[in-house]
Amino acid sequence: MTGPGPADRPRRRMVLLTEGHCADPVIAKTASCLLRYCPDEVDAILDTTAAGRTAADVLGVGGAIPVIGRLAAAPHATHLVIGIAPPGGRVPDAWRPVLLEALARGMTVVSGLHDFLSDDPEVAAAAARHGARIVDVRRNDERDVASRLGIREECTRILTIGTDCSIGKMVAAVELTRGLGRRGVDAKFVATGQTGIMVEGDGCPIDRVIADFVNGAVEKLVLANQHHDVLVVEGQATITHPRYSGVSLGLLHGAMPHGMILVHEPGRVHHGGLPHVALPSLERVIAAYETMAEFSGGGKVIGVALNTRSLDAAAAAAQRRSVADRLGLPTADPVRDGSDDLVAAVERLHRERRAGTRGGSA
Amino acid sequence: MTGPGPADRPRRRMVLLTEGHCADPVIAKTASCLLRYCPDEVDAILDTTAAGRTAADVLGVGGAIPVIGRLAAAPHATHLVIGIAPPGGRVPDAWRPVLLEALARGMTVVSGLHDFLSDDPEVAAAAARHGARIVDVRRNDERDVASRLGIREECTRILTIGTDCSIGKMVAAVELTRGLGRRGVDAKFVATGQTGIMVEGDGCPIDRVIADFVNGAVEKLVLANQHHDVLVVEGQATITHPRYSGVSLGLLHGAMPHGMILVHEPGRVHHGGLPHVALPSLERVIAAYETMAEFSGGGKVIGVALNTRSLDAAAAAAQRRSVADRLGLPTADPVRDGSDDLVAAVERLHRERRAGTRGGSA
Repeated sequence: MTGPGPADRPRRRMVLLTEGHCADPVIAKTASCLLRYCPDEVDAILDTTAAGRTAADVLGVGGAIPVIGRLAAAPHATHLVIGIAPPGGRVPDAWRPVLLEALARGMTVVSGLHDFLSDDPEVAAAAARHGARIVDVRRNDERDVASRLGIREECTRILTIGTDCSIGKMVAAVELTRGLGRRGVDAKFVATGQTGIMVEGDGCPIDRVIADFVNGAVEKLVLANQHHDVLVVEGQATITHPRYSGVSLGLLHGAMPHGMILVHEPGRVHHGGLPHVALPSLERVIAAYETMAEFSGGGKVIGVALNTRSLDAAAAAAQRRSVADRLGLPTADPVRDGSDDLVAAVERLHRERRAGTRGGSA
Repeated sequence: MTGPGPADRPRRRMVLLTEGHCADPVIAKTASCLLRYCPDEVDAILDTTAAGRTAADVLGVGGAIPVIGRLAAAPHATHLVIGIAPPGGRVPDAWRPVLLEALARGMTVVSGLHDFLSDDPEVAAAAARHGARIVDVRRNDERDVASRLGIREECTRILTIGTDCSIGKMVAAVELTRGLGRRGVDAKFVATGQTGIMVEGDGCPIDRVIADFVNGAVEKLVLANQHHDVLVVEGQATITHPRYSGVSLGLLHGAMPHGMILVHEPGRVHHGGLPHVALPSLERVIAAYETMAEFSGGGKVIGVALNTRSLDAAAAAAQRRSVADRLGLPTADPVRDGSDDLVAAVERLHRERRAGTRGGSA
């Protein structure tokens, strides 16, 4: 349930391992998000193929944080974080020496992979030998089913949803939470994936939960955090996804959102890794989510977060206008444009709900 | 992936442990289904609270199969099967002596629970000591994602869906498969739950798969069995269920059904165990399933299987007429009325698809 986070932070100085993939923002999603949201805690990126460059050079975030070629070049680092989702999902054997070296230095090694590092005999033995820690962020033992009881209705729940995987649902959720915070709203980012957990310091890796307990694991996150005024729950995949739709629907019904923010990357026409499966239109994805949300309280899509990282400013602005006109919803790229419009949409919903709730209970 | 099944059958003589629950067809679902579909392999029901009665007496199936009070009363039995889903999902401590006794006799102990018996040190040690086997039917190591590639379109895929859990989706699927077989159709029952796996001898316990791999696990079942003309895939829960909707949607998108059979129990008004959550109407459940099925090929609901076990004959007939009129779909209780109408609906779909497929590829 927990990863290295706020409680750890004074002591966390990270090296992000991205070997060979530091320039790919999809594969290096974890590195990229940690650079964006925790730059003060990152000492370096470790990637022999780009040593000598900077984070800003290779990933567009993280400023002057250096890319290094050897762990020894970051002598004060305390954590080695696997910063990519390696193709195939397994740690390449070529990384073994650097993992062992980090443990030998007493560093904590943090992994978000499905295959747990702590189950690897060689890696586990090295950790034990050196008294070092392995944090497998996806490890969990969730065994509770949802109950729909004890839900605090004064808390407004927002879920970021999307048209595909790796499209910006976590970024949208963090930006929205921070934007709400700047407006004085007591909002909490609820992490549901390994990268979000590394950024926030708590959450649940729901795609790694046993299927029967996904809805329940998400409901537990709601129950644990509903003392805040607004929860912004990180979405996963999409309920239309051939591979992961089950995860996404369990998340929807466990989170019971009052409002949803749809995240899309203009120009993406098929599901990542499935070139034979076309992406449905935004309208169909919205209709599917709103149909299924009727079974968990009836939340609607209240805004669209575009991910325009691959577009120039003019093309991004055109997309933003076009989507806003087409759907009649507040639309922005929260990274490029800021989150004000989406924050306003959430604040409006929260205000209306509070008024309704107070009226109803008066 | 496999449980005790056809390959085992000549050697399988089962005692079904239902201690204290043998008269409840929902809690004793596993016992009830094994009595219904494998009566020749059941030596006895073990339940001290009903010893001396018969299976037909207590569960309405299984004829003269005796209820016994001690394992020794079934001296030729080879398998002790946990025949109920115990409240809380864990084996009560009171059962420990009988499990240990069975292992001491060299019997195979079969469990479909989430908590694996083979992970229980005392039980595992007893098995090792006596050279006896523990089969945890839900144990799996599924790690493949769906690909939507290599699907044989000549094979017609049917999925049983429902308005709730424990409502008859497995029974409907087995009855339909057997009915198709009697009509000379090469049909295969694809088990996706522990009881179905015990009946059929193969399948995958999808509610126990890591969430990310549910769709993929189901797609693998399709790929492994699509040499048959018709697959009848056992449904799980429902996509509108507060607790388990994720499992159900992963199953839908992994199975990619061409047609769905909706299972409902007239009179059920809320989800089992959730008296504060009303069951949606049949129309809403159908609309939700058909909306989500659009993302996996567009299957429609082609028939309704009613579970009228709690009704008398006249009330059951009235329900059957009423639902058929209301939905305009073939409707029957496959246990009470036989499966002919539903079999005909599947045959019609299969014929039309074959004609279409042949036309399309000619």
